[in-house]
Amino acid sequence: MKIKDLPENTLHRLVIYLNVLDALEKKKIESISSDELAKRCGVNPAQLRKDLSFVGNLGTKGVGYTVKSLKFSLKKFLGRTEEWNLILGGLSPLGEFLLNNKDFPKEGFYFMAAFDTKESNIGRVINGVSVYNLDQLSYVTKAIKVHMGIITSEDKAEEYLQAFLAQGIKAILNLSSVPLFHEDPEVKIENFSFPMALTKLSFFLKNST
Amino acid sequence: MKIKDLPENTLHRLVIYLNVLDALEKKKIESISSDELAKRCGVNPAQLRKDLSFVGNLGTKGVGYTVKSLKFSLKKFLGRTEEWNLILGGLSPLGEFLLNNKDFPKEGFYFMAAFDTKESNIGRVINGVSVYNLDQLSYVTKAIKVHMGIITSEDKAEEYLQAFLAQGIKAILNLSSVPLFHEDPEVKIENFSFPMALTKLSFFLKNST
Repeated sequence: MKIKDLPENTLHRLVIYLNVLDALEKKKIESISSDELAKRCGVNPAQLRKDLSFVGNLGTKGVGYTVKSLKFSLKKFLGRTEEWNLILGGLSPLGEFLLNNKDFPKEGFYFMAAFDTKESNIGRVINGVSVYNLDQLSYVTKAIKVHMGIITSEDKAEEYLQAFLAQGIKAILNLSSVPLFHEDPEVKIENFSFPMALTKLSFFLKNST
Repeated sequence: MKIKDLPENTLHRLVIYLNVLDALEKKKIESISSDELAKRCGVNPAQLRKDLSFVGNLGTKGVGYTVKSLKFSLKKFLGRTEEWNLILGGLSPLGEFLLNNKDFPKEGFYFMAAFDTKESNIGRVINGVSVYNLDQLSYVTKAIKVHMGIITSEDKAEEYLQAFLAQGIKAILNLSSVPLFHEDPEVKIENFSFPMALTKLSFFLKNST
């Protein structure tokens, strides 16, 4: 199997394991048994071991996992030992919130520029990030290496997607209300919105006894 | 199959279909072919038809789907024709952002109260929502019907989860950096964080050619 073809559900669980290990490390927990780690990650131990076999860190029988070492293996496997440059598309309230958010740089994700189409927003500087007109995107991406785009536009998500793709940006987090897709397997789009997440809960509650 | 046992991936796709139909309706598109709808939802037509068979709206051969009617069927199936009362746990910047967000009431999700443990936050009113001390939770839930809890605490996510569960809240959206799980099948926890979503993109880019 090519690593790129890792099943989406496995990837989702590996990301969860990384976050749980990060929390354990912050609590100064140095090692953890396979069973206990599985429990904290919401999976059974067999699933955990199977997923971690992709990463190549299998722990030590009877001892379990060293938190620091497993966390590093996972970070490396998931591309999180590297730093990533982001641009933002659409200066909605969510867009402004993200530009001001401290978690992004702390986690190795750096906003390099923001784009909007509304004249009154162009030229603004938010938490050190300049806002450009979307039609200046090609100039900006000539000067700055951009790895990922985050779309926070409320009404022009598709327009930002097309503009980002045209500049060769292949990884997109779409936080607008409309999910976006692209047929090219060389492009990856993650879709998320708060109402989408809450709809999974409303379905659950509607069908609860 | 009990409707409650709908596979998680199917549920995820149904939520996407609902959002795409919502966008189509806003564009005044009245009907759409099965192939075109599938394309806009990032799936193949066979998958779309199979998923929609759970909902019981199969469209009309040669005509496709009526946008308005399919959207209503999906909304009803997903529990989105009802209104849901939320409480928020943890007055982080994300917590404040969500309380001020206009999308929630527009989509039928209403914040009834917010909780925090920091003295200086208690008694504040944010966009009409009062902030209470977490130890007042049982009093508040006696007076107000609460369906869902959103956890936005940066360092006490587990504490809010336990407090919410103790009051019988069974649907939780956890937006803290640490994923939370619970063994009780009567409890549903959705975990999301921005770094988690970006990690899926960093894995993709790291393994791109």
